[in-house]
Amino acid sequence: MSGVVLDPLATIGILGGGQLGRMLALAAARLGFKCHVFDPTPDSPAFDVVHRVTCADYTDAEALDRFAADVDVVTYEFENVPAQTAMFLSSRLAVLPDPQILATTQDRLVEKTFIGSLGIRTAAFAAVTQAGDLPAAVGQIGVPAVLKTRRLGYDGKGQVMIENGSDPRAAWREVGGQPCILEAFVPFEREVSVVAARGQDGAIECFDVTENEHRDHILKVSRVPAALPAAAAQRARQIAETIAHKFDYVGVLAVEMFVLPGGELLVNEIAPRVHNSGHWTLDGASVSQFEQHIRAVAGWTLAKPVRLGRVEMINLLGSEIEDFRRWLDIRGAAVHLYGKSAVRPGRKMGHITRVFPD
Amino acid sequence: MSGVVLDPLATIGILGGGQLGRMLALAAARLGFKCHVFDPTPDSPAFDVVHRVTCADYTDAEALDRFAADVDVVTYEFENVPAQTAMFLSSRLAVLPDPQILATTQDRLVEKTFIGSLGIRTAAFAAVTQAGDLPAAVGQIGVPAVLKTRRLGYDGKGQVMIENGSDPRAAWREVGGQPCILEAFVPFEREVSVVAARGQDGAIECFDVTENEHRDHILKVSRVPAALPAAAAQRARQIAETIAHKFDYVGVLAVEMFVLPGGELLVNEIAPRVHNSGHWTLDGASVSQFEQHIRAVAGWTLAKPVRLGRVEMINLLGSEIEDFRRWLDIRGAAVHLYGKSAVRPGRKMGHITRVFPD
Repeated sequence: MSGVVLDPLATIGILGGGQLGRMLALAAARLGFKCHVFDPTPDSPAFDVVHRVTCADYTDAEALDRFAADVDVVTYEFENVPAQTAMFLSSRLAVLPDPQILATTQDRLVEKTFIGSLGIRTAAFAAVTQAGDLPAAVGQIGVPAVLKTRRLGYDGKGQVMIENGSDPRAAWREVGGQPCILEAFVPFEREVSVVAARGQDGAIECFDVTENEHRDHILKVSRVPAALPAAAAQRARQIAETIAHKFDYVGVLAVEMFVLPGGELLVNEIAPRVHNSGHWTLDGASVSQFEQHIRAVAGWTLAKPVRLGRVEMINLLGSEIEDFRRWLDIRGAAVHLYGKSAVRPGRKMGHITRVFPD
Repeated sequence: MSGVVLDPLATIGILGGGQLGRMLALAAARLGFKCHVFDPTPDSPAFDVVHRVTCADYTDAEALDRFAADVDVVTYEFENVPAQTAMFLSSRLAVLPDPQILATTQDRLVEKTFIGSLGIRTAAFAAVTQAGDLPAAVGQIGVPAVLKTRRLGYDGKGQVMIENGSDPRAAWREVGGQPCILEAFVPFEREVSVVAARGQDGAIECFDVTENEHRDHILKVSRVPAALPAAAAQRARQIAETIAHKFDYVGVLAVEMFVLPGGELLVNEIAPRVHNSGHWTLDGASVSQFEQHIRAVAGWTLAKPVRLGRVEMINLLGSEIEDFRRWLDIRGAAVHLYGKSAVRPGRKMGHITRVFPD
């Protein structure tokens, strides 16, 4: 379904009540909307900032029914919404972006095959369906390579490096003995991402290409603009636009890419949602990724973003949250805390944005 | 009471659930706080974006008791909170800014007398306690002059112009026959305001002086920076700082001033709260007036704001809200809608901010 155009005062349903759901709800509130968040976890961060909450399992048909009856459109904060949940809801009202897209992005093998079919490069990859497939895959891809579960991996979870002399059986056990792909390790120069919004009218607005620095596979710092030649930045935006159009996408998506020493771009991953590398837009652009997503799912015209300077975004991970006060009076630093009570290693607890007007 | 230092995850109580309460709650959410809004009006805009709401009369002692038990500090979005309500709450927990200040700012005569006592100029004024006082007051102040109720006036309500030949009795009836002051009409060149935050440690951060354009006594456009010589801008900030220190103020206040043709400044009014002329800070500064207020009442260090360019804020008043869509794709325009269902002439329904990076 599409063609939804919401009035202000309408209610937007959000599946997932983490920090992304919370920031989506805050952006929706700026535009006059009410939000209803559905999440099975009690005390979800987004529950604190919305009109109505449902705390129930994603398979609870009765709760989903009530949720569907209360909202005017449904969107989600994360890509691992169970496919049945999305299908159940989309039989009742518009669910945007289209849940069909999840089938592609929830499976690395399907995702990379899709990207390749658009003439866009990825790292070389091979399917590894069972332990016995691994030696042949290593023969095909070479080493170093990365064995990744096809489904449900994020922030480096479900990944293991394969080097010369690695024990294939140990690697297979380490990823949990489930269907995988083996990807060639990419000796990249930098990692970048493009956060793009696509409206129901097919219009696309990309934010400027962002350069990302990871620590232990978790995003630590994003910088905008990325240190890329103009032609490469243009090509990065084109890749995101091609993917968004091909999906007939509605909302915000992020495309993570590796930049090779020669300037060539390989797509690493598509996130069919707002993305950590777009958090800088809350303070560093005239419109945030969260508002662009809400505008798109509401059927509103996208904003034409203006970047307000050079921007740096720093994630507060795990116990780093305890030092948040040191940022409070640093000139121009914006502090964002997600309202999470439990601190766990690597958990995203908040972020800092610094904007340096040009 | 003072000396509150809240942890993130604490609950901030807000008296008043209009758009100012809504924007305060959204700012509090960015910092990880929960909010509980108290307002007697059902469907108050701020109710949609908070953890908990109380819809009860400001004199409902039982409701106030429950509210006090649920929150860690109390603040307010508007200056006409009944004094008893504020006193009742402040006997139980910290209410910031100190409700004593309301006694000064709720009464124009007391307010102007206070300002004069600081050596800061206002328009000439005289008390008019009964109809019979008016001729003598006119004799003292001259014409044109403005008769204003001492209490509860805003957006031009409770005001009448007195000119040569005006009928004093008609004027008195028009303001409702209540205690007034007569103020000399000021032939100002421009109207400006300073929005200042003061922390519990006594530190003050002023936003840049804002120039304000009214229509029918209601703010229509704010522009930053104001077209003022540097010395006058400096003097404007000093005035706001002097007032904030004298009040031992905690939170954000706004001081409205007239600029005379010679550059002299007269204080028109003090608003002991976040202020419409500070809405530009949401998009045009590294920290908003709303966040500064929340930081102050939470006992946190104030941010040092950086302005991100030249900024213009345009109020959407009454039926202007119907045209909001024309702003959606204007490059760099930020759209804010307050989630109000009823449109009334002059009602503040939303605003637009345009930031022009330097």
